[in-house]
Amino acid sequence: MRWKRISDAVVRRLPLYLRVLEEAKDQEMMSSQELGERAGVSPALIRKDLAWFGEFGKQGVGYEVAYLREELRKILNLDKSIRMVLVGVGSLGYALARYHRRKFLDDPSFTLEIVGLFDANPELVGKDVEGVTIEPVDALTTRVKELGAELGIICVPADSAQVVADKLVAGGIRAILNFAPVKLSAPDEVEVTNEDLSLELQRLAYYVTD
Amino acid sequence: MRWKRISDAVVRRLPLYLRVLEEAKDQEMMSSQELGERAGVSPALIRKDLAWFGEFGKQGVGYEVAYLREELRKILNLDKSIRMVLVGVGSLGYALARYHRRKFLDDPSFTLEIVGLFDANPELVGKDVEGVTIEPVDALTTRVKELGAELGIICVPADSAQVVADKLVAGGIRAILNFAPVKLSAPDEVEVTNEDLSLELQRLAYYVTD
Repeated sequence: MRWKRISDAVVRRLPLYLRVLEEAKDQEMMSSQELGERAGVSPALIRKDLAWFGEFGKQGVGYEVAYLREELRKILNLDKSIRMVLVGVGSLGYALARYHRRKFLDDPSFTLEIVGLFDANPELVGKDVEGVTIEPVDALTTRVKELGAELGIICVPADSAQVVADKLVAGGIRAILNFAPVKLSAPDEVEVTNEDLSLELQRLAYYVTD
Repeated sequence: MRWKRISDAVVRRLPLYLRVLEEAKDQEMMSSQELGERAGVSPALIRKDLAWFGEFGKQGVGYEVAYLREELRKILNLDKSIRMVLVGVGSLGYALARYHRRKFLDDPSFTLEIVGLFDANPELVGKDVEGVTIEPVDALTTRVKELGAELGIICVPADSAQVVADKLVAGGIRAILNFAPVKLSAPDEVEVTNEDLSLELQRLAYYVTD
């Protein structure tokens, strides 16, 4: 639990570092300069971030790519399996479920597993998405407990997102990724992130200047 | 063009600042400390980033939320309309097209408009997604020119992503958001970003520790 005290500002950057390191598989060492450029963070901040978790770099030499990658995976709990449920299997929910199920099935290093899918629409209930059957949303809390799910993804419309969040929390979910365009309230011990799919597009817009 | 010289490491963070400012609509001022905490960036780095574009903050007072928000929108070209095409209207492509079309139609401040949808599957061609008709991918280059599209989103399978990217570039696209699990090659003047939908999940995994 000691890591809990570390600011989310720090945690938020760790997956960016991990992605760069995973993309550089055939590279042995990487300087904080290069890691910074590729992750979009200043080298000084990277060194400061990593210092929270230990001593990873060698002065003047940089980081051992494979070692730092594995250490970051441990810090982010990506070295163990994490069970997730997704609620709202509309077009976005279906696409995300399919994307993450396939990633889980194809890539052994991807340990985030969607173990439950839920929807209020009876016509969707019973349908299969990459090996997971869609269940009615009514039993969400009970099923979350039974499945031992720790992470929840919300893809329902804005007006039902809070009800779903409450059910997930009641079921013992520790973190929520919310795609509904509404701010959710949850206990402090539950981490809630509102996802904005247009962030990258907004960044890319910068590059279309004449 | 002068902004072109600014590192992508800086550009990458601007939409994060913008999102925080947009979420704080009813707030008049914001300190770089608060902006930093909410954006996941150190206050010092925020001041350094913004200094590239001008003088926005007042010493000890912080930033005027509305003013900085509008300035960031200008810097990111979000004050003008940007035309996009999306290629590959499978489950993910359809979901993204629907999401961004609706956002464009519902939110006047969202100026990124999907003006063209393309797919290789004849059964999808002719179908409508929130007011845009899916076209055959064959004519992509010509249509990109005709539509005056500047930004392209690739949601096709890995093995056809490069061909699609080449057609987009030939059509004059300036930036590409690639969801295909493959590294794309493009001329230096075209900005290519490989999107990873699982980044946020990897961050949230941190919070499910016991």
